[in-house]
Amino acid sequence: MELEHANRAISAAIVQARQMDIRISVAVCDDGGHPVAFARMDGAGWAASYGAVGKATASAATGSPSGRIPPDLHVMQRINELAGDRMIFSQGAVPIVVNGKRVGAIGAGGGTAEQDEACAAAGAAAIMDPPGT
Amino acid sequence: MELEHANRAISAAIVQARQMDIRISVAVCDDGGHPVAFARMDGAGWAASYGAVGKATASAATGSPSGRIPPDLHVMQRINELAGDRMIFSQGAVPIVVNGKRVGAIGAGGGTAEQDEACAAAGAAAIMDPPGT
Amino acid sequence: MELEHANRAISAAIVQARQMDIRISVAVCDDGGHPVAFARMDGAGWAASYGAVGKATASAATGSPSGRIPPDLHVMQRINELAGDRMIFSQGAVPIVVNGKRVGAIGAGGGTAEQDEACAAAGAAAIMDPPGT
Amino acid sequence: MELEHANRAISAAIVQARQMDIRISVAVCDDGGHPVAFARMDGAGWAASYGAVGKATASAATGSPSGRIPPDLHVMQRINELAGDRMIFSQGAVPIVVNGKRVGAIGAGGGTAEQDEACAAAGAAAIMDPPGT
Repeated sequence: MELEHANRAISAAIVQARQMDIRISVAVCDDGGHPVAFARMDGAGWAASYGAVGKATASAATGSPSGRIPPDLHVMQRINELAGDRMIFSQGAVPIVVNGKRVGAIGAGGGTAEQDEACAAAGAAAIMDPPGT
Repeated sequence: MELEHANRAISAAIVQARQMDIRISVAVCDDGGHPVAFARMDGAGWAASYGAVGKATASAATGSPSGRIPPDLHVMQRINELAGDRMIFSQGAVPIVVNGKRVGAIGAGGGTAEQDEACAAAGAAAIMDPPGT
Repeated sequence: MELEHANRAISAAIVQARQMDIRISVAVCDDGGHPVAFARMDGAGWAASYGAVGKATASAATGSPSGRIPPDLHVMQRINELAGDRMIFSQGAVPIVVNGKRVGAIGAGGGTAEQDEACAAAGAAAIMDPPGT
Repeated sequence: MELEHANRAISAAIVQARQMDIRISVAVCDDGGHPVAFARMDGAGWAASYGAVGKATASAATGSPSGRIPPDLHVMQRINELAGDRMIFSQGAVPIVVNGKRVGAIGAGGGTAEQDEACAAAGAAAIMDPPGT
């Protein structure tokens, strides 16, 4: 996950949030679940900052949207505990695939679960392979 | 959140509690969720002290009354764990807005959930912008 | 510990802090170590709020100034863990005795250790039995 | 702490890091110690991301450079535990003052302690009041 890509994804997520008239935090992490870039919009509550990061980490850990409940949720929760207790399994983050390779994930917090995921998806779309490529 | 404002809010909450003939604890925190002022009325149980503080912190974190259950309650509970584990998501605290800016929150404990919120709201009203300003 | 007493002690501690030209937080707890009153002066850092409370709790737990290292410090640290992990064993808080009875403690944070204790002592003196009574 | 300011500070810190030929992470938090913006340069190790954030949080908590060891370090470490356990007391972060008001802090990680602080200071300088204003 290059910083330039991460920042572009965050900008696109913020554009989406503005269109929805909401204030969000957006976090991008690499494939290892570690932070690459983050931004909290003016007026967004600070609590959701932790949510955005936690959901992005969960998505990077599973390679799935953070809102897709894994069939083995209790196993993932134990994995989370053993891996540093930084994941949040809740809608609002999606994986990022570039050139056919999973490079990380982007998560949003501050809106409803659906709004958060829409913003994250808009961010990912700004740097991901176009569908059908 | 200035101390003089916080103390004025606490006094107003206590006046409200006396009118209801209850004994409460009242806590005011700043917008970051950190303590600014606190008072426990004579005769109020000590346990509710922690409730007043925890509800004020939760309200500062979400910018909403602490009794408005967020649709994503489990996310907020995870955020709470990641942000220091000091919030209580339960009725009894409200945000404080001064000059159009959210500056913190006030929470009460010791009465029923409704009484606590009424006291907190009376405290906030003493320093907040008058409605319709 | 009556609230009126606690507030008077806090006011006296703040007067002392102003004379020293420092900004502090001050906490008063009852004999059970539970919060009674608290105030953070404008301009005082938020971190020291937790310090003032923790030192007051430690002083109430031991009945000694929080800066007097107990001979059995490791025992007190274990006791602290078992009793809720809210004490800080460091200079800045003193017990409060009224009418010959220990009623709680007052702690300060935000200055040096010596300044904090001087403010706490000034607060306690405002409501304690005069020496030699 | 506005996002636009935070991003400008991060950009300036990265310019400084490039001049030193090092790869760093940079974090900006608000005055309450909550995340506002973050960036990890390409090639910077992921571990230092947590360092940048932790040092920025510590600096926001104390209002001092995170490398200025407080005389009461063990007190600050206890405060840290009570306030969420997210601070790192080590050189590499400095407070940010805008229009005479402390608005947060910026921290860097990935270089030596001195390099990290130089990058953080360059970031802060980009948005702070010019000296002597």
